[in-house]
Amino acid sequence: MTTQLEKAKNNEITREMQYVAEQENIDIDLLRENIAEGLVVIPANVNHIQQNLKPAGIGYGLRVKVNANIGTSPIKSNLETELEKLDIAIKAGADSVMDLSLGGNLDEIRQRIIKNSSVLIGSVPIYQAVIEIGNPENLTLEKYLEVFEKHARDGVDFATIHAGVTLEALPLLEKRLMPVVSRGGSFLIEWMKKNNKQSFLYEGFDKILEIARKYDVTLSLGDGLRPGCLEDATDSAQLFELRILGKLSERCKEKGVQVMIEGPGHIPLNEIERNIKLEKELCKNAPFYVLGPLPTDIASGYDHIACAIGGALAGMHGADFLCYVTPKEHIGLPDVEDVKQGVIVTRIAAHIADIAKGIDLARYQDKKMSEARAKLDWEAMANYALDSEKFKQLIKSECKDNPEISEYCSMCGKYCTEKRK
Amino acid sequence: MTTQLEKAKNNEITREMQYVAEQENIDIDLLRENIAEGLVVIPANVNHIQQNLKPAGIGYGLRVKVNANIGTSPIKSNLETELEKLDIAIKAGADSVMDLSLGGNLDEIRQRIIKNSSVLIGSVPIYQAVIEIGNPENLTLEKYLEVFEKHARDGVDFATIHAGVTLEALPLLEKRLMPVVSRGGSFLIEWMKKNNKQSFLYEGFDKILEIARKYDVTLSLGDGLRPGCLEDATDSAQLFELRILGKLSERCKEKGVQVMIEGPGHIPLNEIERNIKLEKELCKNAPFYVLGPLPTDIASGYDHIACAIGGALAGMHGADFLCYVTPKEHIGLPDVEDVKQGVIVTRIAAHIADIAKGIDLARYQDKKMSEARAKLDWEAMANYALDSEKFKQLIKSECKDNPEISEYCSMCGKYCTEKRK
Repeated sequence: MTTQLEKAKNNEITREMQYVAEQENIDIDLLRENIAEGLVVIPANVNHIQQNLKPAGIGYGLRVKVNANIGTSPIKSNLETELEKLDIAIKAGADSVMDLSLGGNLDEIRQRIIKNSSVLIGSVPIYQAVIEIGNPENLTLEKYLEVFEKHARDGVDFATIHAGVTLEALPLLEKRLMPVVSRGGSFLIEWMKKNNKQSFLYEGFDKILEIARKYDVTLSLGDGLRPGCLEDATDSAQLFELRILGKLSERCKEKGVQVMIEGPGHIPLNEIERNIKLEKELCKNAPFYVLGPLPTDIASGYDHIACAIGGALAGMHGADFLCYVTPKEHIGLPDVEDVKQGVIVTRIAAHIADIAKGIDLARYQDKKMSEARAKLDWEAMANYALDSEKFKQLIKSECKDNPEISEYCSMCGKYCTEKRK
Repeated sequence: MTTQLEKAKNNEITREMQYVAEQENIDIDLLRENIAEGLVVIPANVNHIQQNLKPAGIGYGLRVKVNANIGTSPIKSNLETELEKLDIAIKAGADSVMDLSLGGNLDEIRQRIIKNSSVLIGSVPIYQAVIEIGNPENLTLEKYLEVFEKHARDGVDFATIHAGVTLEALPLLEKRLMPVVSRGGSFLIEWMKKNNKQSFLYEGFDKILEIARKYDVTLSLGDGLRPGCLEDATDSAQLFELRILGKLSERCKEKGVQVMIEGPGHIPLNEIERNIKLEKELCKNAPFYVLGPLPTDIASGYDHIACAIGGALAGMHGADFLCYVTPKEHIGLPDVEDVKQGVIVTRIAAHIADIAKGIDLARYQDKKMSEARAKLDWEAMANYALDSEKFKQLIKSECKDNPEISEYCSMCGKYCTEKRK
């Protein structure tokens, strides 16, 4: 037995489970049961555990987690910048970081990121397979497995596999305004169209499971057909793939492989609850990892904020894991400051969802903050603020202009309700 | 007959109703009926109409509207800065601006703001009454009416009146972590405690209605007991006041005075729907004007974003009018850039709510944006982006680094899904 899932099924309590139970302040036996049933995953590659990983649990009953995507692009590629993004993402509170690099020395970038990361690392192996083979249509299962095993050996804790994009879905895409916006999904579609064959990821899924099990890589079943605009939201292509992901997730669990499901994407706010409920139903409550959701198409430059709106609601309704987007989404590769902004607003969304879910740890922090606020105790407020550094910096700049700030803030001055009571 | 409500009841269609129906692309007779029933208000002071007002409708079936608070404080007071805030708020898409000034020449500030504003202007007359009389406990109904009439004569389109804060609510505040955080509410509580009498606003409400009717000032019944932290959300004090506001709103409508209800405040995300439903029930579907809601207490420096999360959900469930907060909320008086950021994120929230409510005009813009995106038509994207200026600026800075940008963006480069299809 190698995976957390297998051990949980066998009533074994691992060091990783203990760590997660402490972090979440929950009962260890309940946590183990939830892992055994596939409601919770602890992505913790055996080779990342050996290094520096502080694992995190994702799923039912736990706090909503936040992922930050980093990585080079074919146009912008600098290892040091990516390591800076990694650092700032961790400092800002990301629970995981995905390396989505498309340019430069992919092996070196990934290995350095894993080596430098105390948080979960995810990857999308098909990107490197396409880059090494030159073109999506020439991909083979063998090449894919070779790259996937390389990632697994390096210590990737979870990997996105777009095995739910199948030949049968292609006609459903014809009705769409934007047929495919997932990079991985588009590679598979290109491959299937050129080779006129069922997806090699779908056909070879058992071989993928073998590698995943060997290193305890959690599979993140990618939604290659996620809607890329509100017009295409919750359509037949999206739901067709989700049903396949449900079946594939069952095969993961049978083989002892931890699994979570990736979800949309561009979804109007009034359809978010339904999307979460559908995933929970069709995938037997496997943890749900959502990209956004993004409830408008027109917030370019502020997509991180629009996604925080969708993500908070998704988290309240049961999404377990929020993938951030940054202010540069749909525009360009994020820089270090974009990464920071993306993580912070997504953490706010996750925290808001945790409060709505009634998680005690979340409510406690807000209560302490409010007690400090009622006493006008600015130092304590800085301690409990989600971004203490930002809070201190704003207060400092206020104090410079207004020495009275220690008594009142510059909004109400002597009419401060907390001062007058 | 002077008010839009009286005219609507009398089957009269005003120029303001026509303008709003065109802006919202809805049937004019339906709009008139909704105004007659008190489901919609058009705050349009007879003396602001004479000047430059482009009115807006607030309520059932209309797009969610956005208010920006500006105004001097006892510590920071500069008329030119406030006029700059007014301009930037309007440019960023605010449907109304409230002048909450507490410092400087209050009459001059208000008059200049009204003169310069094509959007609705709101005020909170009790602030000036307290400032002129020196102390909340010395307030009188006469002084209050004198100030209110001055605001009304100047052309204020809507005014917050905290007439729902009554003597009977005082014991309910004892259980709270933060008894009162509304400035107006705290003045009335101070007055009632010192004078040991029922609120003069509650007792003198009919006199307030006379002035409101004369100038068609829409009354915004303020929630002086709104919760100031999650611990106090949806508590007995809040609901006690809401019931009183419901009764007062009936008195407004009987007297031909347009009315809307102000709402919280700090509310966990899972209680927002219930709060909206309660207001609609207890206040017979009078338009609901919410401050936030703010679903966490710890997002200092990002409260505008946390409020956008609460506001989008509130709007989806029927809140009609969102009062922004800025990044400086709980910290200090916003500057011009804070005002801009506050309006933009609140507009995003309102737009997301409009999409969720199925408003065609909102969905249309997203569809056009997605069509442009599918064609990689960057100019058209800039046109449909909610903040075109920001979009252009981001694209320009991307192009400087990457001349290929006209073909792909720097995120995916040649792997762009839109380019490859």
